[in-house]
Amino acid sequence: MKKAAVGPQTNLPIDGDRLWSDLMELAAITDPGMPYTRRSFSPRFLEARAWLANRFSEAGLAVRIDAGGNLIGRMEGADAHAGTIMIGSHSDTVPAGGRFDGVAGVVSALEIARSLCAAGRTIRHAIEVVDFLAEEPSEFGLSCVGSRAMSGMLTAEQLGYRDQTGEVLGHAIGRVGGDTSRLETARRDDVAAFFELHIEQGIVLEQGGIDLGIVTAIAGIARVEVIFEGRADHAGTTPMDLRSDAGLAAALTAAFVAERAGQDARGGNGHFVATTGVVEIAPNAANVVPGRARLVVDIRAEDHRVTERFLAALEQRTQEVAHACRVNRSGWAVLSDTNPAACDGRLQVMLSHGAGALGYSTMPMASGAGHDAAFMTHIAPSAMIFVPCRDGRSHAPEEWAEPEVIAAGAAVIHDAILCFDASESLTPKSPGINLTDHAFD
Amino acid sequence: MKKAAVGPQTNLPIDGDRLWSDLMELAAITDPGMPYTRRSFSPRFLEARAWLANRFSEAGLAVRIDAGGNLIGRMEGADAHAGTIMIGSHSDTVPAGGRFDGVAGVVSALEIARSLCAAGRTIRHAIEVVDFLAEEPSEFGLSCVGSRAMSGMLTAEQLGYRDQTGEVLGHAIGRVGGDTSRLETARRDDVAAFFELHIEQGIVLEQGGIDLGIVTAIAGIARVEVIFEGRADHAGTTPMDLRSDAGLAAALTAAFVAERAGQDARGGNGHFVATTGVVEIAPNAANVVPGRARLVVDIRAEDHRVTERFLAALEQRTQEVAHACRVNRSGWAVLSDTNPAACDGRLQVMLSHGAGALGYSTMPMASGAGHDAAFMTHIAPSAMIFVPCRDGRSHAPEEWAEPEVIAAGAAVIHDAILCFDASESLTPKSPGINLTDHAFD
Repeated sequence: MKKAAVGPQTNLPIDGDRLWSDLMELAAITDPGMPYTRRSFSPRFLEARAWLANRFSEAGLAVRIDAGGNLIGRMEGADAHAGTIMIGSHSDTVPAGGRFDGVAGVVSALEIARSLCAAGRTIRHAIEVVDFLAEEPSEFGLSCVGSRAMSGMLTAEQLGYRDQTGEVLGHAIGRVGGDTSRLETARRDDVAAFFELHIEQGIVLEQGGIDLGIVTAIAGIARVEVIFEGRADHAGTTPMDLRSDAGLAAALTAAFVAERAGQDARGGNGHFVATTGVVEIAPNAANVVPGRARLVVDIRAEDHRVTERFLAALEQRTQEVAHACRVNRSGWAVLSDTNPAACDGRLQVMLSHGAGALGYSTMPMASGAGHDAAFMTHIAPSAMIFVPCRDGRSHAPEEWAEPEVIAAGAAVIHDAILCFDASESLTPKSPGINLTDHAFD
Repeated sequence: MKKAAVGPQTNLPIDGDRLWSDLMELAAITDPGMPYTRRSFSPRFLEARAWLANRFSEAGLAVRIDAGGNLIGRMEGADAHAGTIMIGSHSDTVPAGGRFDGVAGVVSALEIARSLCAAGRTIRHAIEVVDFLAEEPSEFGLSCVGSRAMSGMLTAEQLGYRDQTGEVLGHAIGRVGGDTSRLETARRDDVAAFFELHIEQGIVLEQGGIDLGIVTAIAGIARVEVIFEGRADHAGTTPMDLRSDAGLAAALTAAFVAERAGQDARGGNGHFVATTGVVEIAPNAANVVPGRARLVVDIRAEDHRVTERFLAALEQRTQEVAHACRVNRSGWAVLSDTNPAACDGRLQVMLSHGAGALGYSTMPMASGAGHDAAFMTHIAPSAMIFVPCRDGRSHAPEEWAEPEVIAAGAAVIHDAILCFDASESLTPKSPGINLTDHAFD
């Protein structure tokens, strides 16, 4: 961290200390004995939202919850026709998660709005701070519930998803203050620009010594399940050339995934990763040749054509592997396949210039993780800024970002908003993502 | 099955129908609702033993249980100095096992002794039929309890092993009629020859259309646990070249095991197989690069030098793989490593000639599975005959061997015993196995 090494900035357009204080206070609202856990729809989540609503009010924002369950604080603009500049992220967490994923973006948005108010500037656009509902995969098996609603992409089928208690998602949205009977009112067409600050959840910035990442796109995510079925023969008595080893087929597939993904990552078509994160073999006993193996491969690309080629190659290779191992590839299922969501080019330039003016180093980078901004690209020019996090750790209590980098990111967004407000209107939106995914992050 | 195709034989020196009838009757003694389960030390096991003891008595055998808990039926020989010819196997099963593994050998031994008695022949050697205690890995974590005791290889430490109820093995042996206070009396030095019939538990005989297998050796078994530890990074945000993927290390290791084992199996040094039967990766989530992987590799060889070379190669390769995947090979443990047990050459010749005389095709083959005979090689010339089983299935209710092949195997042992009884004494014993194993089959 080049910038962080020089210590807290005193000349920033936002108050980094106040931002950090809010962040720690909000992060402390967690299920007891299980830091840091604030699951969407839970009592703890509602407690945090009450805290946030109070802070929004204190900042002079008009507070409401939209029909999709998003908590919104609004400051009207000088020009009623200029539309809204929205800033935000989410306050829910995964179980035993961290203090920054989502929360850093919500509290930064609050601090930006508060600073804009306090400065007494005339802003043409309305400013809204948003805490999107249920960004993390919830107990209902769906992620980005609030941003789906705001972009008009939350379907009736999804509203019927049930959690383990039998409650349907639509009812849960009502329980936190939404109203699915008028869900269409949550769909926005007045957002002129959307900004989100988030921790990187990776190690690229840290390893490169870069202060901030300017997100170019939020990668599309494909998930494939592969199942091989062979014969669970005795490991001692079955000669090598008479085996039907499903575990070997799984191993050769996982090796292929890593090798091919390495090639595609070096192919010059932007961010590309593929991971064999799930491997299950049965019966999983030392003295039995594996009779069955299940893999889940996760593929993320900035350029969807790379994903398409990867999927075709994986489909072919798993057939070849099955043949070579004398097993049956009994399962091949594309569980989800979302398109990448491009961030707005002009907003990226504004963020980049703003960072430079404040003395921060930046790099363009794709987001390999999913974010609310991916849905917002459907209805508004959208942009994200990434701040480095220690060791790339996320979704864990060890998750950590320095106060200075969060303040830096918030300051850069603050200045980009002033720049945007002063500029012409932008083109309305970027190519979007489809609806086949249900829960990713 | 060439021979089976001609139907039941009527000119055999044993009664195949009576043998089959006994076999089905004994197999039917199983835990209700869980065919076929007769765990050592269980009430069902004792019920089967009472049935066997009764059958032994009816055949004119003197019945006893030795200090190691082995059930023995004895017929004295004409020459009190000639020693004992022992025949047998085990009556216990794995949970939800089959009707043949073990039982076929015990009932065949009974039928052979019964036929020798009934024929009124003068036999120089005493004949003993034995049901070894707890050949299958028991709840005490030990296999071949009875044959260990009979070969003097059941240790005081092993007698102290506890099952989940807290009972120690020594107490359980007493409960089934043994007496560990005089365990040394179970150790035998009077066995002139030992014969065991067993299902192959493999598909080599069936696929080759061979009637019977003459076992050359019981393979040594080595087990290795390998643990790789990397970093459980976000699957979307961590570039391919910055990963420490323990799952990939596991996959590359499993691929190596299969490739190298195939080479060694073709190397001309007898039976060789190696299996990656256990693969566990953590956290085993689609969106996380595996941070930890555990493998167990099972290696079985007729020639222990091949195992030694394989272990050395695997040790080196896992280090290379760890380096290539930027993970730490935090675990390398040889869990067990037993020497192969060679069957007696002259007994093999007698079995082979006897089979030929009866019109059965045979092939020499190593046993990849463990057997009581492996321990008996330490105290007596020992031999095994394998009968084919359907699809190689074993340790499952589908386990099946045709009545004709079991009768054929029993008849061949019967004739080999007569041949042996008429021949000179044989060399006492073959090179043995060591004690580092605890439970294999």
